[in-house]
Parts: sequence; structure tokens; C-alpha cells
Amino acid sequence: MLTNGGCPKTALSIKDALEALEGRWKLLILFALSTGPLRFKQISKQVPGITDKTLSKELKALESNKLILRTVYDTFPPTVEYTITTHGMSLEKVMEELHYWGLAHRKEIMDRPS
Amino acid sequence: MLTNGGCPKTALSIKDALEALEGRWKLLILFALSTGPLRFKQISKQVPGITDKTLSKELKALESNKLILRTVYDTFPPTVEYTITTHGMSLEKVMEELHYWGLAHRKEIMDRPS
Repeated sequence: MLTNGGCPKTALSIKDALEALEGRWKLLILFALSTGPLRFKQISKQVPGITDKTLSKELKALESNKLILRTVYDTFPPTVEYTITTHGMSLEKVMEELHYWGLAHRKEIMDRPS
Repeated sequence: MLTNGGCPKTALSIKDALEALEGRWKLLILFALSTGPLRFKQISKQVPGITDKTLSKELKALESNKLILRTVYDTFPPTVEYTITTHGMSLEKVMEELHYWGLAHRKEIMDRPS
């Protein structure tokens, strides 16, 4: 049985989390940024399959949820870097559990025919 | 620093997990089913805001990923029940971490003005 299984208040906080992290890209972008600040094109390379349009939209959503910081350096031409915030780094355990579960899921789906 | 931060193999398993759990509903449906088997209308009540069409689509996706079982009982009219599988229950830690993070996120977003 899950901790607080079915409890409406627990469901609410899970819903909050899922809304902030919605879609298949946000956690992957944060994971890429977890090793250090990156520029747009560098993130794009580390998140295979994402289009520039989607990456741009997702970065804005992550910024508005205080999960990343966008810094513009006064160079010529200007340099823009994205950095994960402390709040973004607090998703470490979520990402770790998703990683372990993803491994188990691949095994489950491949090993047992329906 | 995240465990294996940025590692492509870890990113792959996180991607697998996110694809299986995509959207804002699947984990909430699984959370509702974590207390025991439910019928369609009962799930619908426990997941506020979900439409019947979306719930139907999400239940099929969860079934094909072996996260829930659909059982048809030979009554008149037939009764259909949904049960979480052992594989579905293995998401316990993911849900717990999302719950804790959701609480922290609400505090972060509400307490600190941009």
C-alpha cells in the first residue's frame, strides 16, 4: 500500500508537482543542466529529439517556475546561459527514483509478453 | 550535483519513465487505485478535473504499460474493475518523492516573489 494512498491532500501535492514538470522534456532539460550551466545549443544536443521551438518554450516554463535561471552576459554578441537553481536541484530524488523505475519498466515491458 | 548528472544512459531511463507516465493524469490515477480496485466512475470522482474521454484513454495506456489490470466480471450488467499491478505499485517511491517535492514547490512559488 502506498503511503497515504488515495489521500486527497497527498494527491493535490502530486498534482502540483506534475503540473510544474508536465511533459516529457522538463526533467530531461534539468538533468542536462545538473552538471553545470549550458547555452541553448548545448542543452539541445544533450536532449536528443527536442526541437528548438519546444526547448525555447520549456526553458521559459522552467524559468517561471524558478527551476532555472537565464543569465545574459554583456559580451558581443551577447551570451545567454541557463543554470539550474537550488529549487531545480531539489528534484534530485525525483529524478533518481524515475531513473531506477525507468530501468525496471524497460525490463518489465521487454521481458514479459502480454 | 545529481547522481550521474548529465549521463546519457541515466537520461535514457528517465526518458523511458517519463514516456510511460506522460501527462498530468497517469500518476494521479495510479495513486487513486493504490488503495484498492475501483470502477470507472469511482476513479473519475477521485481524480478531479479529468474528463471521461481522457480517463478512458489514460486507462488504456496504463493497461498497455502493465501498470493496471482491467477485469470484467460476468454479472448483468457486466461490472468492470481496474486494479493496480505490482509493477504499478513499484511507482510508490516516485509518487512519494513527487508528493514531497510538490509541497516544497508550492511553498517556493508562493513565498518568494519573482
